[in-house]
Amino acid sequence: MAAVPNIKACVFDVFGTVVDWRNGVARHAAAVAMRKGVELDPIAFADAWRGRYQPQMETVRSGKRPWTILDVLHRESLVALLPQFGLEGKLSEAEIDDFNRAWHDLSPWPDVVSGLTRLKKKLIIGPQSNGNIAIMVNLAKNQGLPWDVILGAEVVRNYKPMPQSYIDCCRVLALPPEQVMMVAAHNYDLAAAQKQGLSTGFVPRPTEKGPDQKTDLKADGNWTVVAKDFNDLAQQLGA
Amino acid sequence: MAAVPNIKACVFDVFGTVVDWRNGVARHAAAVAMRKGVELDPIAFADAWRGRYQPQMETVRSGKRPWTILDVLHRESLVALLPQFGLEGKLSEAEIDDFNRAWHDLSPWPDVVSGLTRLKKKLIIGPQSNGNIAIMVNLAKNQGLPWDVILGAEVVRNYKPMPQSYIDCCRVLALPPEQVMMVAAHNYDLAAAQKQGLSTGFVPRPTEKGPDQKTDLKADGNWTVVAKDFNDLAQQLGA
Repeated sequence: MAAVPNIKACVFDVFGTVVDWRNGVARHAAAVAMRKGVELDPIAFADAWRGRYQPQMETVRSGKRPWTILDVLHRESLVALLPQFGLEGKLSEAEIDDFNRAWHDLSPWPDVVSGLTRLKKKLIIGPQSNGNIAIMVNLAKNQGLPWDVILGAEVVRNYKPMPQSYIDCCRVLALPPEQVMMVAAHNYDLAAAQKQGLSTGFVPRPTEKGPDQKTDLKADGNWTVVAKDFNDLAQQLGA
Repeated sequence: MAAVPNIKACVFDVFGTVVDWRNGVARHAAAVAMRKGVELDPIAFADAWRGRYQPQMETVRSGKRPWTILDVLHRESLVALLPQFGLEGKLSEAEIDDFNRAWHDLSPWPDVVSGLTRLKKKLIIGPQSNGNIAIMVNLAKNQGLPWDVILGAEVVRNYKPMPQSYIDCCRVLALPPEQVMMVAAHNYDLAAAQKQGLSTGFVPRPTEKGPDQKTDLKADGNWTVVAKDFNDLAQQLGA
């Protein structure tokens, strides 16, 4: 592992790295199903919703549609999924909006708040997520995530892993890329960040995609730091 | 005064309302002058620099030039001012960059940190300043301002008091305008926000522009809340 450079900011992937989207979305799906008297597999619902995440963003990344925030993409995916889970015609527009805010209320992994609190004393910390600002603010308020700044897709109007999303993140902070560490549980995100000169921190989340997860179980690249969790990351960065 | 509606977020003007730019910039100007062995009036320097603020932003608001962040506008103003203060040719490019970061290191008024800390427990709080993100993040890190989110000009790519800057601030938070309170020591800022449906909070800063300040000594409009300081604002909002 390379020596840790002079890091001034850590920017974080959020869905999977900071919060457990799978169990969180499943919890909201189960609540909706119960209210509507519908039987469904909440985990299957969460996986199906998340399964539309990359294809939806790809419609923006490819230029097929103009810049569109994730709340809108999520809602389109949700509406498309309702029939196969027996929920077609059962939710009002306001109830769909409310269900869509499942992504605003997800629990962090147990090490997150303590690790971020340590890191914040030494560094600038912020999400560099594909989620829009309202999602990130509400997640933080609901869960006590002590961000200094909300960065990410809506600020730079670009979805990861587009190169410009990482470049603009550093530009906005007025920091050289090597002083900014992208932290993620996903090797593809770190590979894309590293190509733009950012430092990289890998933290595995081996159950993000469930007990049978096969990918991202370990670091696949020459990352600046590989940490067990956010507290270990803080330790390794001297925070 | 109208009854206080159900406010979910307070967004703040920063230069003048949160931080004392005049004495802060003067402190940095005095330090530069001392290092360079030049005699200058630091307060006059601060006033001259700030005097170019609105005209510089107007070049962007008017469409004469494309979107440009405040750090760049500030730096142009600084370079233009150096001759009249005896500093022409005395600063390297890196020293000019450093001097320009005076705006990243300004002290808050005494009630700010305690008032924001109270408000943060009940509401989303963030700057809706014409300063760019790096200025806002560094001010917050230097002074312990506990923002939940950095909003403002760079996020919405528009300078106050353009109507769209207030509209987009609420859109980004996914809140209806009446649930967002614009807080400022400047009546013109509140008037522009009120026209777009935002709630408004006036907090006077009667020495922002020095001991002989003539403007913004009191509320000039029918604002939602008029508060003595940020602690009084928190009190009036039940925080």
